[in-house]
Parts: sequence; C-alpha cells; structure tokens
Amino acid sequence: MTTPESAHAGDEAQLRQLIADQLSAIGAKDLDRLMTHYAAEVVVFDVKPPFQTTGADAWRRTWAACLPYVPDACQTESRDLRLTGSGDVAVAHWRWRLTGMAKDHPAMQTWMRSTAGDRRSRGRWPSVHEHASVPFDPQTAQAAFTPEPQSYT
Amino acid sequence: MTTPESAHAGDEAQLRQLIADQLSAIGAKDLDRLMTHYAAEVVVFDVKPPFQTTGADAWRRTWAACLPYVPDACQTESRDLRLTGSGDVAVAHWRWRLTGMAKDHPAMQTWMRSTAGDRRSRGRWPSVHEHASVPFDPQTAQAAFTPEPQSYT
Repeated sequence: MTTPESAHAGDEAQLRQLIADQLSAIGAKDLDRLMTHYAAEVVVFDVKPPFQTTGADAWRRTWAACLPYVPDACQTESRDLRLTGSGDVAVAHWRWRLTGMAKDHPAMQTWMRSTAGDRRSRGRWPSVHEHASVPFDPQTAQAAFTPEPQSYT
Repeated sequence: MTTPESAHAGDEAQLRQLIADQLSAIGAKDLDRLMTHYAAEVVVFDVKPPFQTTGADAWRRTWAACLPYVPDACQTESRDLRLTGSGDVAVAHWRWRLTGMAKDHPAMQTWMRSTAGDRRSRGRWPSVHEHASVPFDPQTAQAAFTPEPQSYT
C-alpha cells in the first residue's frame, strides 16, 4: 500500500484480507457475509444497469437477485490488487473473474475491473463506494469481454 | 466531503475545483492541462479497451488519440459528485457527459460514470487511479447508453 502519512502495514494486510473475503463470499453465494463489506451509505456503479445504486439496502436487493445466477461450487480469481491509503480512507482496485465453471456456462465469462473506496469504521473498512465494469468497444457498443486481462503500458 | 479525521473544508473545495478543471480540459481538448491531473504511476480502467492502462505516458497517448474525436466547442456536464477523504487520500465519484454537440454527432451520446483515487502531492491532488465506465446489458452484451442517469435507491 502506498502510505503517504498515517496508514500502517497492518491496515494493508487487513484490507487485502477483507477484499479476499468479499470475493470468497461471492463464490460461496453468501449474501450476509458479502454485505458486511459495505457501508450503509454506499454508492455503487455496477457492471450492469442501473447506472448507479445508492444505499446498502438497494445494493443488497441487487445481490440477492444476482447470486442465484452465480454457478454452484464457483470460485473467484483476482489479480493486480493495488491499495492507496491515508488515515481512515483507502482506495483499492483489482481485476477478477469467476472460475471453476463449465466453459459454456451462461454466467459472465470475462475478467471484470473493480474499484473500492473504503473508510475505516469500528475496526473494519466498509466500502462507501464501489465501481465495477467491463470496457466496451465504441464502434459496436459491445462489451469487450476478455479471457485474459490485457494491459497497455 | 466525508472527513473522518484530518481532511479540511479547503481540501474539498480544492478537489471540486480540480475535477471541474479536468472536465473543462476535456471539453477544451487541452491535453497538457488534462494531464496535470494524473500522477506518473496512475492506473486507469477506461470506458473503452484496453482493460487497464498503466502510467501517465500510456494514458497521455490514449487521450492524444481520443481528443480529436471530441466535438469542437464541446462542453461537459457533471452531477452527483461525492468525495470521501482522510489525510492525503481522497476518493471521488461523479457522473458526466459531453454536451453542446449535434444530436446525431457520432461522439458518445451517453452519461458516463467516473471514480478517481487522488493522493495529495505538492499541494495538488493528482489521480493515482481513475475508473470510467458505462454499464452493459448482460443479455445482449450491449453498452447501456442512457440519456438520463437513472438511479436505484
């Protein structure tokens, strides 16, 4: 974690563990565990419509409708987590996908990109903002699914 | 701005001004001014491919290729900016679009969603991360363009 002032190595370890647990909860389809990672006032920009979801209650309803479509015995894989923090706020971003499902399963067979804005509260770091997406090709307006997460440098 | 500890009202005013200037630079097609808003190590998840762009040099090349497609005499409109900060790190998210172009102009006629992770450096707040996207419809894989930014609460 980039720690300009007051963040600690222990904060980075805790944040990494929390993000791993959040991904694990998706694979386990454990709605209650998943929702422990969000603040009541969270604002989400999700992969799919609507454009914005405001508040943990609305976000919980979204996940409740979505989790049945996650394959059973599914797992998640993530890469390239980067954290930047100071004091009680951290920004995290990573790439992730569902794994362990049949190649023709209709669940999303693509890498996705996630960003979280976390604020420390009572010893945890609930997300006050999350932004998840897949890029799209402006020529066709099609989502640019990718089996491998290409990068420009 | 949500200020759990050490951020100041002056920080919020400065961050709002910087984001307004960043949007203004897009409308003005001013590449040099736009790039003052990014840290050298920025990692970008852009609206269009690639999946990830790493470093200000690569990101500058992306904007240099993109700005010619922004309509002349174009402006930008933003809504719902929210800031969360502590110490030297802030997370900002907002919705925005290009305005002032003909209704049939081929530039993207949609609202977009942006998230920035900013870290204070030498009195400014360059972005170490930016994530911009449009949601997509998983049934069709089409980008879900929207003339109005609908929200679920």
